[in-house]
Amino acid sequence: MTASAQPLLVVGTVATDDIETPFGAVTRAPGGSASFFAASASHFAPVRLVGVIGDDYPTPALDPLVARGVDLAGLERAPGPSFHWSGRYRHDLNAAETLDTRLGVLASFEPKLPDAWRHTKYVFLANIDPRLQHRVLDQMVAPAFVACDTMNFWISSQPEELVALLARVDLLTLNDGEARQLTGHANLVHAARWILERGPRYVVIKKGEHGALLFDRDAIFFAPAFPLEQVFDPTGAGDSFAGGFMGWLARTDDRAPGTLRRAVVYGSAMGSFAVEKFSFQRLLEVTPDELARRVEDFRTLVSFDREMPA
Amino acid sequence: MTASAQPLLVVGTVATDDIETPFGAVTRAPGGSASFFAASASHFAPVRLVGVIGDDYPTPALDPLVARGVDLAGLERAPGPSFHWSGRYRHDLNAAETLDTRLGVLASFEPKLPDAWRHTKYVFLANIDPRLQHRVLDQMVAPAFVACDTMNFWISSQPEELVALLARVDLLTLNDGEARQLTGHANLVHAARWILERGPRYVVIKKGEHGALLFDRDAIFFAPAFPLEQVFDPTGAGDSFAGGFMGWLARTDDRAPGTLRRAVVYGSAMGSFAVEKFSFQRLLEVTPDELARRVEDFRTLVSFDREMPA
Repeated sequence: MTASAQPLLVVGTVATDDIETPFGAVTRAPGGSASFFAASASHFAPVRLVGVIGDDYPTPALDPLVARGVDLAGLERAPGPSFHWSGRYRHDLNAAETLDTRLGVLASFEPKLPDAWRHTKYVFLANIDPRLQHRVLDQMVAPAFVACDTMNFWISSQPEELVALLARVDLLTLNDGEARQLTGHANLVHAARWILERGPRYVVIKKGEHGALLFDRDAIFFAPAFPLEQVFDPTGAGDSFAGGFMGWLARTDDRAPGTLRRAVVYGSAMGSFAVEKFSFQRLLEVTPDELARRVEDFRTLVSFDREMPA
Repeated sequence: MTASAQPLLVVGTVATDDIETPFGAVTRAPGGSASFFAASASHFAPVRLVGVIGDDYPTPALDPLVARGVDLAGLERAPGPSFHWSGRYRHDLNAAETLDTRLGVLASFEPKLPDAWRHTKYVFLANIDPRLQHRVLDQMVAPAFVACDTMNFWISSQPEELVALLARVDLLTLNDGEARQLTGHANLVHAARWILERGPRYVVIKKGEHGALLFDRDAIFFAPAFPLEQVFDPTGAGDSFAGGFMGWLARTDDRAPGTLRRAVVYGSAMGSFAVEKFSFQRLLEVTPDELARRVEDFRTLVSFDREMPA
């Protein structure tokens, strides 16, 4: 990390996951939106993690994050079970089927930011109850850039809280199905415009294996998903994307349009690594060289020449 | 068209379509794989069309193609009804639901190429019965580049004819669902490899609104689908893509890797125009200026800067 890398705060879930894929299954794997985000972003900037775990959490699983500069001072430990997710992927691996979600200690979580963290410039409100996303924002003092993620569950259960949140963030990220659900627009350009009219300057619509679109009022940028040979476990790919994206912004401390585009590519790169193994394992193993090569592979993937003179 | 533009032969269907979309419906619209292909390719090279229509065909509908340099000397007229397709698109517009297919005169069609056409360098076997695709190839004399398209119906009803065809073509184009159906591989990189092992040097896997992938043994190129505001009627988008792709090859008379990449972008551009109106209407209206701007819009869509020096 360069000297200019700014700290990056994330609030989200720290969970245990039971995951079933066509290639294997795992129980109580370390997971959660904040965990994947932190593992990814740790390649770019110091991460400040806000969340809660129960007394059943396998805390050694978090040691690799700490070793990579993730500060867990905002991670509470509460009596009761940790947040737990159980999901299954069928053969096309693009959509998770949720089998079970147990909130555990998350149900009564009241985030309390360490004082020094209230001035963090870069903030990511990972997928979690919108009321908690608001409460974290309430404690922030003039952040430079706030992004948030959500999911279909919050869109249907707390639409007003979510729309109120849009007025408070710079960027919303969600997947294409959620964009359609939230806005009522099947067309993604229209869906993005609906969102941009309600507060955010930017929208990232993630399309899983089909890439990601970055919209602002004037332009659209598209980063493809890397055509991988082995998609092993897609869990956390979106949060890994967010970690790469926000991580790049925090690292450069810059929000110019070209930087945001490059941030999307870094996000896609981190997402492409995350899916290669269960949990955030692969994210911990990525080397700077691999990351640089993956980003250049993205460029090669989409580059074409200008027309030859006739 | 430049002086170097080579003629381009297509065999496929010339049909009437009944189409229902969320935005409107039309009956007996001019359609068919060869028609869309020809309308698209006519922007790049002279097209030689091989096919059959019945005595019920609204032949004035083909006049605009003739005006654009499409040669209908290979289009037979037979007693009986023309090939007819009826389809419906629901709100997401990405997949057609076939309501009815009536072969009509196509059922007994025996393609007979005009002698001069047997030496055409660039050949596209559009979506049609694989036996007819083989029969056209049987009459060709050393074409420089042969591409073919197919659909789920032929993959399930004539798998052996299709695999035999792979050994005779340079490029196969099909959509992602068909690639999985044909090869038994859910992963598209594996599916492409399966196809490349059976004859073609190239595979284009079309992903509708999600773009197109060009594979050869060494590399992958991805062209996004243009994020359109108004997708009106997706019928013929794949054939329009093929027309732009093959049209560019025939126009440049070149098959270098960079040319193939640019051909994919031209194909995507033509596909993006085709969906704006019913039938191939919009394809006839595209101006060279619009096309050039659309291609540059594709470049802008995916371009990102190299990292700034630290």
